[in-house]
Amino acid sequence: MTTSPAYAAVDWGTSSFRLWLIDAGGQVLGERRSGEGMTTAAKAGFSEILEGHLDALAAPKNLPVIICGMAGARQGWVEAGYVDVPAALPKVLTAAAIVPNQKRDIRILPGIAQRGASPDVMRGEETQLLGARDPSVSGEQLFCMPGTHSKWVRLTGETVTGFASFMTGELFDVISKNSILQHALTDAGSFDGSHPVFLAAIKAVFAQPARATNLVFTVRSGQLLDGLDATGAAARLSGTLIGAEIAGGMADGWQRKKLDAPIRLIASGRLQGLYEAAFDALNLPYNTIDADEAVRRGLSQAAKTVFGGNT
Amino acid sequence: MTTSPAYAAVDWGTSSFRLWLIDAGGQVLGERRSGEGMTTAAKAGFSEILEGHLDALAAPKNLPVIICGMAGARQGWVEAGYVDVPAALPKVLTAAAIVPNQKRDIRILPGIAQRGASPDVMRGEETQLLGARDPSVSGEQLFCMPGTHSKWVRLTGETVTGFASFMTGELFDVISKNSILQHALTDAGSFDGSHPVFLAAIKAVFAQPARATNLVFTVRSGQLLDGLDATGAAARLSGTLIGAEIAGGMADGWQRKKLDAPIRLIASGRLQGLYEAAFDALNLPYNTIDADEAVRRGLSQAAKTVFGGNT
Repeated sequence: MTTSPAYAAVDWGTSSFRLWLIDAGGQVLGERRSGEGMTTAAKAGFSEILEGHLDALAAPKNLPVIICGMAGARQGWVEAGYVDVPAALPKVLTAAAIVPNQKRDIRILPGIAQRGASPDVMRGEETQLLGARDPSVSGEQLFCMPGTHSKWVRLTGETVTGFASFMTGELFDVISKNSILQHALTDAGSFDGSHPVFLAAIKAVFAQPARATNLVFTVRSGQLLDGLDATGAAARLSGTLIGAEIAGGMADGWQRKKLDAPIRLIASGRLQGLYEAAFDALNLPYNTIDADEAVRRGLSQAAKTVFGGNT
Repeated sequence: MTTSPAYAAVDWGTSSFRLWLIDAGGQVLGERRSGEGMTTAAKAGFSEILEGHLDALAAPKNLPVIICGMAGARQGWVEAGYVDVPAALPKVLTAAAIVPNQKRDIRILPGIAQRGASPDVMRGEETQLLGARDPSVSGEQLFCMPGTHSKWVRLTGETVTGFASFMTGELFDVISKNSILQHALTDAGSFDGSHPVFLAAIKAVFAQPARATNLVFTVRSGQLLDGLDATGAAARLSGTLIGAEIAGGMADGWQRKKLDAPIRLIASGRLQGLYEAAFDALNLPYNTIDADEAVRRGLSQAAKTVFGGNT
């Protein structure tokens, strides 16, 4: 017997859109993915893009929709605000913003803000955390969520006690396209976490994070003096930025005490492979949670809280 | 009595051209500055640009010319090669390349290369070092030379024993123009080393260099949460990158032993002020050598060696 959808779950980032139709039992009935992120939607219309994808899946006209991510930013669809650190994750579930003047019930989850000396924000990752936390761990857990602006998050029980964003993905992009290194990276092929230049860069910058912007320059000088090829150049830039992020994520006292649990890596696809290889190279214990599954699980919890029992 | 020029000294960088007419006693008789660096000259013609500036100063047709900098790179006028580390600075003086088929004697000084695990190159800075070193210091000296690709150089006696380039200036440029931070920096005014946000960033990243790419992100989150203004945003980005460079330049054991001499800062203009403020904030002893004077003095030493006694 085919079940019918109870709600649609949407992860709406800066540059990506993902939608799942989910039934009351948590089963995924349909999926849509596109590059129509907040940036595109701000011009083309959030409602138009969302309804187009729902129509493509023949979703009922009154199906409720739960959304997380940059759609809730000030430049997004409807500003969904922030829950401040220390942030109990269940609070995120009850602070969703209602999108007004829609023919269906659409809610956008808030982000989390850290005010004070280390100001920081997240939107979307809080929903992944909801789906990824391990309720059996009572102590502190450290999450690593790689991406354009990677997040490292400390969670105690169900409360986010602190977090830090690292510009890893975006720096790789702007440095490889706009700096003098672009010449060294022209026509780089793909590489994975087993590339020896990637692993060497991870170890070098983790041992001496202060050398990060020097190690980035060796992408250029390595090409000039050692004949470093374009793929190796990309691997060195990537390894330097990811290794610097891991050193930073582990800083602030983390490395000086035993973690209550391995690092919880929330990732998928290519980034998952690179970060797993990096953790292996640094002998850091970790386990991996699929990022897609985590955000879907988090959105399902939110739907149950927001829309009630019949979801 | 007006003296006549003995030679022309040229510092020819990637994006800048500076020429001085100098007499046998070392006096500067005339000066030209322009933005016709290697990048421009590779298209417009090195000879044409040089002769144009010499004509503007009514330089004799047989006046010899000594050049340092990127004009000696592979993409430059004539490749002048490298002297390898450990590099005795006087060796730079005797390895100048002759520019062929010119109506006057034109020589380009080589750069210095560091091969091995930390590949690195410099062109132009070796000539500044020639002019800036303190012969009265017999032990190790540490030089800081800020710029697009800042150099930190260890000199023992007259030998460069090691150096490291940091992409500080170029990273400021590409990040402020091409990343998400561009919104936070729009219409930033000028700031100097006394700006409290600059000084706080210097201290924060020096204390925890692993947090560099996180502190860069706080330029954005500081704007969102704390109302950090555009000038403050620029000051925070600059302070983070300069502080990370200083931490890296001081790494590799430097900070663990007493330096034989204060850090020797070779700089001028705005960068001089920023780095002096940073060193002051970090309680690092230093003294400053004017970068223009250093390169002129280095070029004069080279001219005496290369062209002989009458210069």
